[in-house]
Amino acid sequence: MTFIDFEGTQLIDSDESFMRMALNEAKVAYQEGEVPIGAVIVHRGRVIGKGHNLTQRLNDVTAHAEMQAFTAAANYLGGKYLDECTLYVTIEPCIMCAGAAYWTHIGKIVYGAKDEKRGYSHFHDKILHPKTVITHGVLQEECADLVKSFFRQKR
Amino acid sequence: MTFIDFEGTQLIDSDESFMRMALNEAKVAYQEGEVPIGAVIVHRGRVIGKGHNLTQRLNDVTAHAEMQAFTAAANYLGGKYLDECTLYVTIEPCIMCAGAAYWTHIGKIVYGAKDEKRGYSHFHDKILHPKTVITHGVLQEECADLVKSFFRQKR
Repeated sequence: MTFIDFEGTQLIDSDESFMRMALNEAKVAYQEGEVPIGAVIVHRGRVIGKGHNLTQRLNDVTAHAEMQAFTAAANYLGGKYLDECTLYVTIEPCIMCAGAAYWTHIGKIVYGAKDEKRGYSHFHDKILHPKTVITHGVLQEECADLVKSFFRQKR
Repeated sequence: MTFIDFEGTQLIDSDESFMRMALNEAKVAYQEGEVPIGAVIVHRGRVIGKGHNLTQRLNDVTAHAEMQAFTAAANYLGGKYLDECTLYVTIEPCIMCAGAAYWTHIGKIVYGAKDEKRGYSHFHDKILHPKTVITHGVLQEECADLVKSFFRQKR
């Protein structure tokens, strides 16, 4: 779904549309031989940060999609907190990324598929900021299938 | 305690000595108006990565001392994993940094003072990698006092 804001700019207002952008980021990762997880951060209907996994290229196990997106969004806004933003990420954030999300005070997180191993929700219910709203399951099959296909190919 | 290795290089082999280096990093942060937490990463008796909190300067709430140190150490080693390394950090790692430590497979973590609010150990006992050894309490009063003094001054 799209709508037009006061300045006549076309804005997108749909979890599925933004998750598709995150999926596109994940597909870029796939093509680069990175674990295919992608993220975008949205502020008032606009993407202000995005990222995909770069652990291979940067030789840095902390270079997850969400970490890049948080840093990009804070850079864009010029403020440290993302309380008016939504993170769309194809796979449930790990403990590290959920811990980072806490520090950003992010307003909402929408994730696609669950991560049964390192997904934050398997550890503790107070890892995220108490004001962060959570939605999941958006395009979950596509999100999960991309990761499964990547690891099948690696074996 | 110091000792001489086979090449005649003086190596330091003491948790307290390395924690003092981490404290020096924390003091640099203090002088820069950053929350005074410092970290060093040691590999075979040598510091190969260090960092202090840079959340203000970088306008990035994820710029914790440990995150910088992990990235620096992986850069130095040219490999992603830090299983032969020890992280010395003045304050107990938060959830984000402990989650990052998991991905690095770090061999050992030595921290000074506990963090009663966001210290990882208050959340779940399986956040760190199962092979990571933990020591704490090294120079804990100095480590804690620096942070207390910082926040007292800020009020």
